[in-house]
Amino acid sequence: MQPIEYADATAEVRAIFDDIKNSRNVPDVNNFWKYLANEPRMLSHVWSSIKDIMGPGGHLDPLVKELIYVAVSVTNSCEYCMASHGAAARKKGATEEMMNELFAIVGIANMTNKLAEAYRVPVDAGLRVPE
Amino acid sequence: MQPIEYADATAEVRAIFDDIKNSRNVPDVNNFWKYLANEPRMLSHVWSSIKDIMGPGGHLDPLVKELIYVAVSVTNSCEYCMASHGAAARKKGATEEMMNELFAIVGIANMTNKLAEAYRVPVDAGLRVPE
Amino acid sequence: MQPIEYADATAEVRAIFDDIKNSRNVPDVNNFWKYLANEPRMLSHVWSSIKDIMGPGGHLDPLVKELIYVAVSVTNSCEYCMASHGAAARKKGATEEMMNELFAIVGIANMTNKLAEAYRVPVDAGLRVPE
Amino acid sequence: MQPIEYADATAEVRAIFDDIKNSRNVPDVNNFWKYLANEPRMLSHVWSSIKDIMGPGGHLDPLVKELIYVAVSVTNSCEYCMASHGAAARKKGATEEMMNELFAIVGIANMTNKLAEAYRVPVDAGLRVPE
Amino acid sequence: MQPIEYADATAEVRAIFDDIKNSRNVPDVNNFWKYLANEPRMLSHVWSSIKDIMGPGGHLDPLVKELIYVAVSVTNSCEYCMASHGAAARKKGATEEMMNELFAIVGIANMTNKLAEAYRVPVDAGLRVPE
Amino acid sequence: MQPIEYADATAEVRAIFDDIKNSRNVPDVNNFWKYLANEPRMLSHVWSSIKDIMGPGGHLDPLVKELIYVAVSVTNSCEYCMASHGAAARKKGATEEMMNELFAIVGIANMTNKLAEAYRVPVDAGLRVPE
Repeated sequence: MQPIEYADATAEVRAIFDDIKNSRNVPDVNNFWKYLANEPRMLSHVWSSIKDIMGPGGHLDPLVKELIYVAVSVTNSCEYCMASHGAAARKKGATEEMMNELFAIVGIANMTNKLAEAYRVPVDAGLRVPE
Repeated sequence: MQPIEYADATAEVRAIFDDIKNSRNVPDVNNFWKYLANEPRMLSHVWSSIKDIMGPGGHLDPLVKELIYVAVSVTNSCEYCMASHGAAARKKGATEEMMNELFAIVGIANMTNKLAEAYRVPVDAGLRVPE
Repeated sequence: MQPIEYADATAEVRAIFDDIKNSRNVPDVNNFWKYLANEPRMLSHVWSSIKDIMGPGGHLDPLVKELIYVAVSVTNSCEYCMASHGAAARKKGATEEMMNELFAIVGIANMTNKLAEAYRVPVDAGLRVPE
Repeated sequence: MQPIEYADATAEVRAIFDDIKNSRNVPDVNNFWKYLANEPRMLSHVWSSIKDIMGPGGHLDPLVKELIYVAVSVTNSCEYCMASHGAAARKKGATEEMMNELFAIVGIANMTNKLAEAYRVPVDAGLRVPE
Repeated sequence: MQPIEYADATAEVRAIFDDIKNSRNVPDVNNFWKYLANEPRMLSHVWSSIKDIMGPGGHLDPLVKELIYVAVSVTNSCEYCMASHGAAARKKGATEEMMNELFAIVGIANMTNKLAEAYRVPVDAGLRVPE
Repeated sequence: MQPIEYADATAEVRAIFDDIKNSRNVPDVNNFWKYLANEPRMLSHVWSSIKDIMGPGGHLDPLVKELIYVAVSVTNSCEYCMASHGAAARKKGATEEMMNELFAIVGIANMTNKLAEAYRVPVDAGLRVPE
């Protein structure tokens, strides 16, 4: 698959590219969107989801949202996603100290996730209550 | 493997259990620690890592840290970990709205992680800069 | 590990390479097989499994089988596997529209998989019936 | 989190539940949707994505789409997703023979994915062409 | 899918069940084989692979092989596989101390795997040599 | 993030680098440690865990420990980790035959892990006993 540049895009795709550029105040969209434009239905769905959930408003701070996104991307070993959301996190104010602490948490969580599975630890009675 | 209760624990394990209970102000440790006590070296390492990184101090808010931990646990489908860190997040102030938004981010991130891999999206030149 | 070329292979490995070439009507085997030839027992087992399950005959269309293979490879972020089975799918008739739709499904499925885990959704009574 | 039943749902959620029921001709929505209704924004996004991509129309057969969905769900070990999409696949015509062959492909693909990674197999020159 | 008991199995499946029972000196095969018998081709392929690689002979000690199998199963959070290969490891001589140390290694490896990804650590020049 | 070389490191980091070099009798630490030095707390925790569990002493042979580490790293598709622990395993005596057999086991285990999940195989009564 080849990325679809603005000049070669359909009106439908251009409208989404324009919305991404305006929402983020950037001169061009990232490669992710240019590749995803090969499937305009998903371009639309993914962008509307991200615009709705990742932007300002909602219940978590925009920086916190990006840190969560990076944590998932590291756990999935998605290099592109680590690069793009790592950059976004830094742009929203993440310091190197915060990124390092984030990586530490992700490392520890992956360790304890596997230990909990290895020992097949039953959920404590008290942990079931608030659900 | 059977969980090791305080009454049956060695002095070394008891000291760690006591430190967990004091640090968290709880009457007993969770099942995770009782099972991990079968390997006292790891009980010590895991607890010292978590105490150091997950507690107050550092660069991220304690609630943010727990949300990151939950995000990793969901991505790994670790039921025990979701239950224990979900409860910890709520205890530290996570509202239902925040938990729902967290789940939304984790879902979207897992979707875009796989889309980025499927299209083998090359990292944008601009994203390489701040590293 | 180094790939094992036909000229350097044992008679046992050559026989399998020949069978792959004849079955697929290709002049040489892919790198995957040349590396796997370092462990002739697995070369034999993997090829006999793939020949038996992935070839014509059976209950699913050969193209459908390749699409399923790509879906797993994307979910596992295996770049080599995406490249080789993506090429195989196209050779068996997958259009760009089909590949894009496949990627969309894989993305959505990974999203809903994690949402189902996050909410710990219990299996509906009605869904247990046909098993 | 508790599932949200139709009787307790907001008008916004009810409208989506109604659309799911009408589109699928079922008397009630599955548990997945009732839990996801705790986050109405994602309920809307997920449903609109699935309605758009998984339904009739598009480039792949509806049954093929479900088989791909099951393949991802097995690879992610998502029990709820295997149950719900396995049932959907059977409803759309998957026979037991097809499900067994699907499982075989998923098993083999997971094996070869890891072998390709273990040997760090470089992508063949010929496989790079059609992209 | 329902498990296939010996009494209801075809001659082809019975022959494999008999070979498993004889090779392992057990009165009946485990549930895994009874379910896999729904796809006799895979029953045959999986058993022949396991018999060939996991049994005595070869280059690694049978106990070491089982420990490796458990390590993969924990990393994949496969409960059935942890139970069956954990039991097999104990039968082949794994002590509780060894199992605990195994779990510790798996936990640490999962942590460092994610840290290496998070920092996108380039492979050292010296590590490329022996391959 | 940039790797931290010895010359630029704090006294705290240098002490850990020195301990790694002395313990392993190497002239310099690998890249992993230089990157991890960006988070000195984790550098300390990870090194103390690895020194304690992966070194001589304990209940498993040092080579067996490395093979287990490689098995996890392959399952997680962590390229850096496969390279570094593969090299460590060879240094501790792993032959090419052993590495090939290890890869075979990892491949087979990943296949059967997914098959056990696909069929939702219930744990045999007899397998529950020794836990």
